[in-house]
Amino acid sequence: MARIPHRIYLAEESLPRQWYNLRADMKELPAPMLNPGTGRPATAEELYPVFCKALADQEMDDGTAYVDIPEEVMEMYRIYRPSPLVRAYNLEKELKTPARIYFKFEGNNTSGSHKLNSAIPQAYYAKEQGLRGLTTETGAGQWGTALAEACAYFKLPLTVYMVKCSSEQKPYRKAIIENFGAKVIPSPSATTNAGRAILAEDPNNSGSLGTAISEAVEAAVTTQGYRYVLGSVLNQVLLHQSVIGLESEAAMALIDEYPDVVIACAGGGSNLGGLIAPFMRDRIRGKNKTRFIAVEPASCPSFTRGKYAYDFCDVGKITPLAKMYTLGCGFKPSENHAGGLRYHGMSPILSKLYHDGYMEAVAVEQTRVFEAAELFARCETILPAPESAHAIRAAIDEALRCREAGRSETILFGLSGTGYFDMTAYQAYNEGRMNDSIPADEDLRKGFDQLPKVE
Amino acid sequence: MARIPHRIYLAEESLPRQWYNLRADMKELPAPMLNPGTGRPATAEELYPVFCKALADQEMDDGTAYVDIPEEVMEMYRIYRPSPLVRAYNLEKELKTPARIYFKFEGNNTSGSHKLNSAIPQAYYAKEQGLRGLTTETGAGQWGTALAEACAYFKLPLTVYMVKCSSEQKPYRKAIIENFGAKVIPSPSATTNAGRAILAEDPNNSGSLGTAISEAVEAAVTTQGYRYVLGSVLNQVLLHQSVIGLESEAAMALIDEYPDVVIACAGGGSNLGGLIAPFMRDRIRGKNKTRFIAVEPASCPSFTRGKYAYDFCDVGKITPLAKMYTLGCGFKPSENHAGGLRYHGMSPILSKLYHDGYMEAVAVEQTRVFEAAELFARCETILPAPESAHAIRAAIDEALRCREAGRSETILFGLSGTGYFDMTAYQAYNEGRMNDSIPADEDLRKGFDQLPKVE
Repeated sequence: MARIPHRIYLAEESLPRQWYNLRADMKELPAPMLNPGTGRPATAEELYPVFCKALADQEMDDGTAYVDIPEEVMEMYRIYRPSPLVRAYNLEKELKTPARIYFKFEGNNTSGSHKLNSAIPQAYYAKEQGLRGLTTETGAGQWGTALAEACAYFKLPLTVYMVKCSSEQKPYRKAIIENFGAKVIPSPSATTNAGRAILAEDPNNSGSLGTAISEAVEAAVTTQGYRYVLGSVLNQVLLHQSVIGLESEAAMALIDEYPDVVIACAGGGSNLGGLIAPFMRDRIRGKNKTRFIAVEPASCPSFTRGKYAYDFCDVGKITPLAKMYTLGCGFKPSENHAGGLRYHGMSPILSKLYHDGYMEAVAVEQTRVFEAAELFARCETILPAPESAHAIRAAIDEALRCREAGRSETILFGLSGTGYFDMTAYQAYNEGRMNDSIPADEDLRKGFDQLPKVE
Repeated sequence: MARIPHRIYLAEESLPRQWYNLRADMKELPAPMLNPGTGRPATAEELYPVFCKALADQEMDDGTAYVDIPEEVMEMYRIYRPSPLVRAYNLEKELKTPARIYFKFEGNNTSGSHKLNSAIPQAYYAKEQGLRGLTTETGAGQWGTALAEACAYFKLPLTVYMVKCSSEQKPYRKAIIENFGAKVIPSPSATTNAGRAILAEDPNNSGSLGTAISEAVEAAVTTQGYRYVLGSVLNQVLLHQSVIGLESEAAMALIDEYPDVVIACAGGGSNLGGLIAPFMRDRIRGKNKTRFIAVEPASCPSFTRGKYAYDFCDVGKITPLAKMYTLGCGFKPSENHAGGLRYHGMSPILSKLYHDGYMEAVAVEQTRVFEAAELFARCETILPAPESAHAIRAAIDEALRCREAGRSETILFGLSGTGYFDMTAYQAYNEGRMNDSIPADEDLRKGFDQLPKVE
């Protein structure tokens, strides 16, 4: 075969026309969401006041394997998809590894990350339902940017509750969201009961993702014609993100490759779940022996040190309960922690797969993550988002293992986004001001003690 | 023919293997650079103490039409090239224009702009010559970032003199340059005679591109084994940037298109000169009637209000003299001016073409530029650099003209970079704090009066 090019682009007509729903192939399904009031499985109807109807239906649909992507969504996908699959020749050379390293690059759009893949259908279904607007929350800011882009495209009003410390530390993130016409409210705010309650106790509260979720949900259910949307964790989000994995599978087939290892960072799990989808399908069907590695920060170790239990998805405890690996909904990573991946829980689908042994997980410390990010940037000339750099760290570690063992494995990792808006963290790393902090066992225990009691 | 896709990607093997030198086809050559000491044409030998040998030779070579791209440069080009040619379907729809709008997108690399296309060969030739390091200056920061990337790749030390106010207003630009291992010195600095002289007169001087050039040149010629490199204006830079135009030509041929109008922003002219190269060749040869439009800021109107005359390339008056459209080397655009495109002069090649009637120029005010940027971002989901948004403004104006006239022309413009590091300007626009300022005739006259007297 001819030499594999650096960037493997699928033709536009090879863009998948259907999303893939991994649940349809799982031998055991994830545990259902529970209504915290009744303790019984939530129904789609119960979700309609919070979520768009079509999205609530997707959330509950465990059986349909392939879901048509609406043509209006395809139209916007075509602006930036198919995204490139890149052979990291220079990184391989630098590491002197016999492994072949590929990454799927999702940073080639203005939102700078994979989040746009789910933002587009979520905005589309809301528009189609005739809604007047949407609310959401954003932490690191990638989801807020992506949803603002999608809402601008579909001409739908959007209110973003942005974690207050993040809106202060990242004024440019706030600006780009506003640039796409969305309204940004630093959270906790005086615009909701949830926000006011927190401010009454602690006027200087700097916010958290869980609090911002509480506010955004409250704002949605109390505003006529509004619904709430979420950028990760949910089944519907993993469904939309499957486009990453489907394209990766098709691009690898073009060059006659198949991954021995698939690696992605894991916060809520949307990027990981999307990338692995078709490869995990084949693993479940016994067609491959591919390894799957979730990479999480040592400072927010949901998989590696969390509990597999029912928990609230938000701090305010107003969402349904999900069974997932969790550190407890009150968990906050250390203030030293850079970037996203700070969510207390994890996608129920991925939690189940991990619990059933289909997936591995590693926790990595942030100085080693930024070390990997810098090496990668110098080799491949893409400055990764700190989140994505977790996957790079693990991919490098796997490539070094291949060097030790003399194995030429095929490594595929997800480069979910770029780090243009994370320069504060890079500055801290450059100037030697970055340090690692890991939650104490005792603190984790306190979080576990507060998990809701569910049979 | 099948519907034209949104993004037209050339295959990796279609990446041009030669740059194209427009001078080889020009009926009259640009006036030669002059040695300011002797008043006589500068020779390549006179440039060797300042520039790498290979680059000085390229600077002087008016006759060779096609120059082989070294394989080492090709290797790094392949990381991010060919860059996409994009059909702006959504923008067309929004404008209700019968015109077909295409843009060549050069923002798909970490430097975020086309500057990398010249940074790579410049770093390569320096490495090949066995130099110990390079110096350069950067204003808006795109060139500094690109060169830092290229130098990191070729493992070559780099010192960047960064306009002081820019290094303060854009700390993230400074961080990303440092991230690639380069040393950043805010200019004016105490490290050079040029800098010390300016600081002695005005300790709070906030710097200018011309001053930073003076410092970078001085540092290069006074440091053993160092040379100076420049990211625009020069013939060598336009040569390297021809890769943009050559790829555009090949991609348009794939879809059976040819531009009626080619549009790019013009600061020093590297992006414009690169994009138009093959189309201008055909125009000179009488093979097309394509129009070429240079777009410059009304606050720094080199083409539209400048003089075609010999001038220094820097404020410190230590560089050779170039015949070009200039506002005088002491010119500074208003402090309200956002982004780059603030250079007093213009590429001698483009100056000559404009002077001989091959090219048009328009000056646009920045509020109209940001208005176009915002519309474009919402339609095409790419946040443009303020510089590139000048081209968008003119492309929109041309598309509206086509609507009025009912003409379905093919418009091609250069989207030279992304605006991730320019959010301060976008914030100012969003918040209504942006205003336009245009130099008074009297101020321009003062600049013209100080032009060097050259026969």
